[in-house]
Amino acid sequence: MVRCDLAPVPVGHSLLGGLLGIVTDTAGGAHVATSATLIELGESEDALSALVGLVGGDLKACNVEIVVRMDSPVVLIPQLAAHIVAAGGKRLRPLLTLATARLCGYSGSRHVKLAACVEFIHTATLLHDDVVDESLLRRGLASANAVFGNKASVLVGDFLFARAFQLMVEDGSLMVLAILSNAAATIAEGEVLQLATQNDLSTNESQYFDVVRGKTAALFAAACEVGAVVADRPAGDRLALQEFGMNLGMAFQLVDDALDYAADQATLGKTVGDDFREGKITLPVLAAYAAGDREERAFWQRTIESSEQTDADLDYAFDLIKRHHAIATTIDRATRFSVAAKGSLERFSDSPLRRSLMAVCDYTVSRAR
Amino acid sequence: MVRCDLAPVPVGHSLLGGLLGIVTDTAGGAHVATSATLIELGESEDALSALVGLVGGDLKACNVEIVVRMDSPVVLIPQLAAHIVAAGGKRLRPLLTLATARLCGYSGSRHVKLAACVEFIHTATLLHDDVVDESLLRRGLASANAVFGNKASVLVGDFLFARAFQLMVEDGSLMVLAILSNAAATIAEGEVLQLATQNDLSTNESQYFDVVRGKTAALFAAACEVGAVVADRPAGDRLALQEFGMNLGMAFQLVDDALDYAADQATLGKTVGDDFREGKITLPVLAAYAAGDREERAFWQRTIESSEQTDADLDYAFDLIKRHHAIATTIDRATRFSVAAKGSLERFSDSPLRRSLMAVCDYTVSRAR
Repeated sequence: MVRCDLAPVPVGHSLLGGLLGIVTDTAGGAHVATSATLIELGESEDALSALVGLVGGDLKACNVEIVVRMDSPVVLIPQLAAHIVAAGGKRLRPLLTLATARLCGYSGSRHVKLAACVEFIHTATLLHDDVVDESLLRRGLASANAVFGNKASVLVGDFLFARAFQLMVEDGSLMVLAILSNAAATIAEGEVLQLATQNDLSTNESQYFDVVRGKTAALFAAACEVGAVVADRPAGDRLALQEFGMNLGMAFQLVDDALDYAADQATLGKTVGDDFREGKITLPVLAAYAAGDREERAFWQRTIESSEQTDADLDYAFDLIKRHHAIATTIDRATRFSVAAKGSLERFSDSPLRRSLMAVCDYTVSRAR
Repeated sequence: MVRCDLAPVPVGHSLLGGLLGIVTDTAGGAHVATSATLIELGESEDALSALVGLVGGDLKACNVEIVVRMDSPVVLIPQLAAHIVAAGGKRLRPLLTLATARLCGYSGSRHVKLAACVEFIHTATLLHDDVVDESLLRRGLASANAVFGNKASVLVGDFLFARAFQLMVEDGSLMVLAILSNAAATIAEGEVLQLATQNDLSTNESQYFDVVRGKTAALFAAACEVGAVVADRPAGDRLALQEFGMNLGMAFQLVDDALDYAADQATLGKTVGDDFREGKITLPVLAAYAAGDREERAFWQRTIESSEQTDADLDYAFDLIKRHHAIATTIDRATRFSVAAKGSLERFSDSPLRRSLMAVCDYTVSRAR
């Protein structure tokens, strides 16, 4: 096994153990503490809007950078990239780079370009994920591959990925290049691991958490770590922000996986039940499968492992997941990650920005309620 | 139009004009000069073997680097990567990095790792190209996507691409990072442009040459330029090697496009007629179409533009291409690029390595005869 992580990664391969370690002190009271904060914030999307309000100028500059830099004389590239980049995603990942840089007291503008890099890498993975998953809806719009075809999605994803590295080279920090190239490799590993565990109910939770860390949390972690790097903060702050991003990303993906079995399609903005139809192994399924009787296990084996599904199966899957409180289990895990994320911010002085980032941790979990 | 080329690119957007400019002095006698060299070299693959002989130790070290660095705890990654990386390609691109570094008098070992980067980027594009083209044969073996599926090919390609950037970061040269990230963006642009011109007989030669420059020549150029960078040679040498690689890459791809309508399938190691079946616009087709009568043009429109093909159509396409000497036209253009490539080496002192690189230029064209 060869790993090329140049940047120290305090969160080890067995992620869950490490992360739960972080939250040991507060785990018992996690639910209470989180609920209290949620009530304080009105349990709404206001957390994200508030963060946008605090770094609004930066975000505007980042959006300009994104539009300018996804241009190419090959017109199909900006056409297709616009379809997904401009489709009104939350810009959560670049927001994290912008906010963490400011949290670290950075007063320059390098973070704007690097936030655009982060969004380009994210967009490239979305484009390749669309090809992979044949998802029909992405952010409520027809996915890029449904409109432009798989070929174009792969290649424009490649372009955006290369463009991200061009932007990093322009910035000139080898440490940023290390962080984001490591993240890109980890993302690909997570996606391949997800593919390898697809349709396989013998997947254990540790493997599931490795998938989540790779496909989602690694980029959150890198996005936040970059904020500390541009601000030239010491390693302790850099690693704290990396952990913050990693835990927030874990919470975010776990909630996403819960929503796929719990959300109203209009709210979610993507096709509910996608994961089920694709035989993806997520925590709601693992929890319901583990708690199920012989007959229920046979149902999961037929639908997930053998991919034999009828129209009525999704509703029955919903029933089983509800019966075994698998959504609550998933959200409970997500809450622990969210609490750990907030804990990583404690070394930074209290400020509107820190409070806002903590509120985003709560929002990440509360959107599932 | 926004371009992010940090490295000066002397070969402009209208590539053919620029390159033909380079060969003006020798163009008249190009055929004669080339033939003479070919006879001298026995018109065989000995040119490549000779080059391998001159940098054999480096190539062996590069192959070790490739195998070690494509490893991952996610076992599907080395499995799939081995299928294509270890499938016995000629390693032409990394060979160019190794040879140009030594030509520049470099005595260290950085070029080994960077040659591996070049091969990883190439492999990533092959994997994505397999998805795109649904090609059944690649280097005479079943293509990775036929064995492992499209999903895995996309994601493992992403991993190798990210791994290439991790290796570059380890090396630590921002100039190398600039050269290869620019090349990666240009490759993606070339591939998207190829997609946009597919099935479109109104594509002009200039657009065709842009596609070839992007999808093939840009990486050849970058591979050679990196050789000069590790040797810390002045800009003149660096740009000369960049031009050498660019011209060699153009020649290489033009001959490849000719072989798709001319080669014996066993020799080519890929499915003959792939380009025809996919409606790819290549110079043999453009030349035959331009020279064709009304009936012939209708044939090309039906088969290439409307993708309506019967079993007999490929043979008729072969006939038309032969009738209008479209292969000879293509090889003639390739020869001019090959001659230009050799010209770029003239500023370097005569040596076995220089002679060997020049012989590779001749071999690139002679394999089509």
